[in-house]
Amino acid sequence: MPVTAHQVRLKERPVTVLDERTFEYVTEELPQLEEHEFLVSLQYLSLDPAMRGWLNDVRSYLPPVQIGEVMRAFGIGSIVESRHPDFAVGQAVTGIFGAADHVVSDGQAVAVVDLSVSAAATWLGALGMPGMTAYFGLLDVGRLKAGDTLVVSGAAGAVGSVVGQIAKAKGARVIGIAGGADKCAWLTEQLGFDDAIDYKAESVHRRLRAIAPDGIDVFFDNVGGETLDAALANLRHGARIVLCGAISSYNDSELAPGPSRYMSLLVFRASMTGFVVFDFADRYPEAVEQISRWIADGSLIPRTHVVEGGIPAFGSALAMLFAGANTGKLVLEL
Amino acid sequence: MPVTAHQVRLKERPVTVLDERTFEYVTEELPQLEEHEFLVSLQYLSLDPAMRGWLNDVRSYLPPVQIGEVMRAFGIGSIVESRHPDFAVGQAVTGIFGAADHVVSDGQAVAVVDLSVSAAATWLGALGMPGMTAYFGLLDVGRLKAGDTLVVSGAAGAVGSVVGQIAKAKGARVIGIAGGADKCAWLTEQLGFDDAIDYKAESVHRRLRAIAPDGIDVFFDNVGGETLDAALANLRHGARIVLCGAISSYNDSELAPGPSRYMSLLVFRASMTGFVVFDFADRYPEAVEQISRWIADGSLIPRTHVVEGGIPAFGSALAMLFAGANTGKLVLEL
Repeated sequence: MPVTAHQVRLKERPVTVLDERTFEYVTEELPQLEEHEFLVSLQYLSLDPAMRGWLNDVRSYLPPVQIGEVMRAFGIGSIVESRHPDFAVGQAVTGIFGAADHVVSDGQAVAVVDLSVSAAATWLGALGMPGMTAYFGLLDVGRLKAGDTLVVSGAAGAVGSVVGQIAKAKGARVIGIAGGADKCAWLTEQLGFDDAIDYKAESVHRRLRAIAPDGIDVFFDNVGGETLDAALANLRHGARIVLCGAISSYNDSELAPGPSRYMSLLVFRASMTGFVVFDFADRYPEAVEQISRWIADGSLIPRTHVVEGGIPAFGSALAMLFAGANTGKLVLEL
Repeated sequence: MPVTAHQVRLKERPVTVLDERTFEYVTEELPQLEEHEFLVSLQYLSLDPAMRGWLNDVRSYLPPVQIGEVMRAFGIGSIVESRHPDFAVGQAVTGIFGAADHVVSDGQAVAVVDLSVSAAATWLGALGMPGMTAYFGLLDVGRLKAGDTLVVSGAAGAVGSVVGQIAKAKGARVIGIAGGADKCAWLTEQLGFDDAIDYKAESVHRRLRAIAPDGIDVFFDNVGGETLDAALANLRHGARIVLCGAISSYNDSELAPGPSRYMSLLVFRASMTGFVVFDFADRYPEAVEQISRWIADGSLIPRTHVVEGGIPAFGSALAMLFAGANTGKLVLEL
């Protein structure tokens, strides 16, 4: 019996914020499986800040999603039919399946995951791309050491919340920057952050100066803008800034001004380094194993923020990221 | 007989450009030498872009020069009187003696130099701080390798001209960015640069795209501003940006906008690193030995731009740097 997929396709590139013109929601009858293919029924779609960049028609680390294409998205689901020798019906799988409730896959870049290790949605968060991003960004790019002072922006987000918890596990002092008292309380009371700065309520620059007078060793930036400048003004000698994202400017139609305090890098003999997590693909198993261990021993609490409503809710759910409406990893339940 | 020193002292902090109110020119009778002191008669003062930063009352890698103090300056001269066991009359010495024609020194951070290796002024240029800055910035911070494409801004300046020539000696392809056809011709015809871009006459961004379509491996930045953004837009994967200076904004009264394309560091998995040459003081002898060898075998041509007029010409000579009026290392002859 043919399977009908419900899909999110790019209708019109957003100039600034996403709106109802950005995506269209369509149904498509999937073809019969060929040899070496399998059919996945998706349970959750991952909603990621990086998606905003994929909608812009510019050269970047991945090609832009084309008008009319199914929106690029990570997802997790289970195999409901298979003609592939390496993938069996019933297995849970993750991959960039696209924003749809059913997809046909050839298994490329698809990982079979063990739901006994952690709940399905966590495989899109702490054990998925956000977790990999946090792990390699913090430890390989940021070269965090025990005793360092680590500051992370977007600290209540999918990546930031894992960054801070890994840093704690590694013996660093951890300061999170997030928007709102609730998020800040969650960071310090639930996740064990040493301090949290509510950028909506106080000057990040002044607060950093007060609570980290000796400066920051590693700044893991998900936000950009004024937050990055505040960190630049409060570095310690030899500091490492890890550039992971700049969500504060993703909806800008023109290039936002850069960090005006970038010459602090000279004064503090510091570096600012960009990375793309896909470059660490060979080492994902190492990170998954380590993060699983931290989850198991309670030193890392994965948090998922589940949005209901299925495929038609994709656009409004994605927009939540840019409004700072999520705490933890945002996923869409199908 | 008492010695009268002619000195340059800071009179008023400049808000933007230097002018006649910035410095005052005074005479001072020097005290008799104490034990472990010697008297230096200066031959040349070094004029450096970094001096502009030393005039601002902000925290930086060195304390600001205070109102009424002798201006901080490197110089070279000879010892005319000595009560120091390690320094003899007749020796040529360099150090941060200050902007004056005669100074009493206790020998701290003073180096005895051999004028048979190179002319006196070269010890303020290719064999002095600019040369040390070029050597360690390019090789240690920038990790330049044979086959790399190296782009340097301020290429006709004291640091930039040495950076490009060291890079050629190391087997890199070298592109210089400078202001004016004369400087560009000097870079390609005399110094062996592969290409030169006249930023006053053409778009640096478009020209870089045309002549370095595969991108830049190392960008050594002395300039900042639009030049830095043009480089950021034309990086190769794994590129290293070495932050040495930002002369384009040194005279600004407010912080200039930062590099709006800084997120290119993420796309290209690139880094931007600041450094201060004084951190490499232990290794200056290595650089002096190597640069001397390149000068001796003709692969590095040191160029000095000598301004006459003595102490009273200090302010106007320093201002030449910010007008791009120098080619090579600018010094004031006393």
